[in-house]
Amino acid sequence: MDLSKLGEFKLISRLQSKLKYRSPQVIQGIGDDCAVLSPNSGNYQVLTTDALVEGVHFNLKTITPEQLGWKTLAVNISDVASMGARPKFSVISLGIPKRFSVNFLDRFYKGLNQASQKYQVELVGGDTVSSPKCMFINLALLGETFKRKVFTRSGARPGDRIYVTGTLGESALGLKILESPGKKWKGSKTCRAKCIRRHLKPEPRVEAANWLSRSQCRVTSMIDISDGLTQDLGHILEAGKVGAELFESELPISKAFIKYSIINNLQPLDLALGGGEDYELLFTLRPEDVKKIDIGAITQVDQPVTQIGEITATKGIRLISKDGRSRTLHRQMGYNHFKGKE
Amino acid sequence: MDLSKLGEFKLISRLQSKLKYRSPQVIQGIGDDCAVLSPNSGNYQVLTTDALVEGVHFNLKTITPEQLGWKTLAVNISDVASMGARPKFSVISLGIPKRFSVNFLDRFYKGLNQASQKYQVELVGGDTVSSPKCMFINLALLGETFKRKVFTRSGARPGDRIYVTGTLGESALGLKILESPGKKWKGSKTCRAKCIRRHLKPEPRVEAANWLSRSQCRVTSMIDISDGLTQDLGHILEAGKVGAELFESELPISKAFIKYSIINNLQPLDLALGGGEDYELLFTLRPEDVKKIDIGAITQVDQPVTQIGEITATKGIRLISKDGRSRTLHRQMGYNHFKGKE
Repeated sequence: MDLSKLGEFKLISRLQSKLKYRSPQVIQGIGDDCAVLSPNSGNYQVLTTDALVEGVHFNLKTITPEQLGWKTLAVNISDVASMGARPKFSVISLGIPKRFSVNFLDRFYKGLNQASQKYQVELVGGDTVSSPKCMFINLALLGETFKRKVFTRSGARPGDRIYVTGTLGESALGLKILESPGKKWKGSKTCRAKCIRRHLKPEPRVEAANWLSRSQCRVTSMIDISDGLTQDLGHILEAGKVGAELFESELPISKAFIKYSIINNLQPLDLALGGGEDYELLFTLRPEDVKKIDIGAITQVDQPVTQIGEITATKGIRLISKDGRSRTLHRQMGYNHFKGKE
Repeated sequence: MDLSKLGEFKLISRLQSKLKYRSPQVIQGIGDDCAVLSPNSGNYQVLTTDALVEGVHFNLKTITPEQLGWKTLAVNISDVASMGARPKFSVISLGIPKRFSVNFLDRFYKGLNQASQKYQVELVGGDTVSSPKCMFINLALLGETFKRKVFTRSGARPGDRIYVTGTLGESALGLKILESPGKKWKGSKTCRAKCIRRHLKPEPRVEAANWLSRSQCRVTSMIDISDGLTQDLGHILEAGKVGAELFESELPISKAFIKYSIINNLQPLDLALGGGEDYELLFTLRPEDVKKIDIGAITQVDQPVTQIGEITATKGIRLISKDGRSRTLHRQMGYNHFKGKE
């Protein structure tokens, strides 16, 4: 069925019926000029927004509508998690060319609903408009901190330890695989599938973020890795006017990932340091609190949390290789929207 | 200067510097993964979002960048006002083709800043992305109610009086003038300029909304008129399962507007009832409270507030003409995004 047969109002009510998660803090959801929310008193709130454009942020030839729905919410949740907050309420806007089918939107909302249920975010409103020339999505997400505890980019001090959740580089490798379907990709199909999944259906680290915000650990800065470890660490260093040493041997990259990269003539280290879209948390911690993480994280959070380096007074990022040699990493710029890769 | 010369990060910081309004409730604004907000305890919040697409919602040949910036925020503020709430915090996303100049964005942000300062909304974040094929804007706005008082569409009961702020139809006439630049428009230049201004630079009725929410008036339902009086009244009637009688002689349309319409072969009544984009407040009130409005509104709010009809148990909308005859108004559908005008 095409969109023009259904019409705007029926379409909205059809899509709305796919969203199952209900928050006790929502007084009134979709259906009026605004949603009505009841914030918990004593907490701060965090607010973020992200726009995704077809052909720029996603390619409908390689991502399914379900994955796109999931990812739209997941990337915003990652921003909320990086502040140490819980995602709560969301509004979504869709700009849709008429050529899109109702089936596409049904599937998009199915993925959106999956992420909404998993991360307990209620979609409380939105705007569905026709956009003749391009499809775009915008999502705005409101979250709540634990009390007034919030992690920002600034605050890292020399001596602080640098941590990262999960593993690095797989999403970037997944994107490379998707972008070159004609290339003969050799090696493990399991690794290949994992990398693609990590790119198309990222899992933001809400659990780790909330464990940290409720813990006694003095997290001095935090960011999520969307543009690549080097660039996002760069934001922390710039905000704190400090530098960093990273230990190559400590970077959380799996053996299977290294093997798959090398077999296909790719540098696993480049992918891990500059790849982007990992949606892992990168944070710094006072050195006295290292033990708290080591004991706590392993038993209470579903992701590994790895110490990968240390904040230094000397600016710049130095990578200490396995044989003890040091080299300066040039901060990769990642994706610049009006210049392409720099 | 074109966008590719400036680059994404410099562009963002340049645009950010144009935004002057700061709210004491913003703990941290633009510059991190999320903004951090401190909501007032004891109030509800309202959340809304609106997407605007070039060629669908605005025409860059008829609206200046400043007006577009203003209007983007103003239409969302109108939604917040229609809940009886005050607008507070906003995040904006811009999808921009590379052909756009930095100057265009400077001017867009100038208008955005004007509305932000006038209505005391802090822009706390956003996303600026390249969108090769079309320009779009998305704004999400968070507002706060007075205590837990919120006006919704539902609640109108038979006997309630129907009120509207300001005047009707001028925005719709302004749009017609803009859409037919080749037509010889006759009559008052002052009226023509006013109608165009009302279309391009609407002024949401925050003051009236907040007067009502702080008053003792029992407002039983409220909506803002974006799709035309008949259609938006229809939403109130549907939600309350009631009908309405409107008194033609009471509709707030100016003599100059009537004259200008007729001289140019347009029906002023059609424009006032079905035109849309008035961004006036439409609300219903318990009949016992009519006196409170009559005394209060005139002295305390900068806009006229006019009683235009009454809620009835009989469904549908009947227009009572000046000579006492009644005719049923067919609910105009306004703009349907996937069908065009119905």
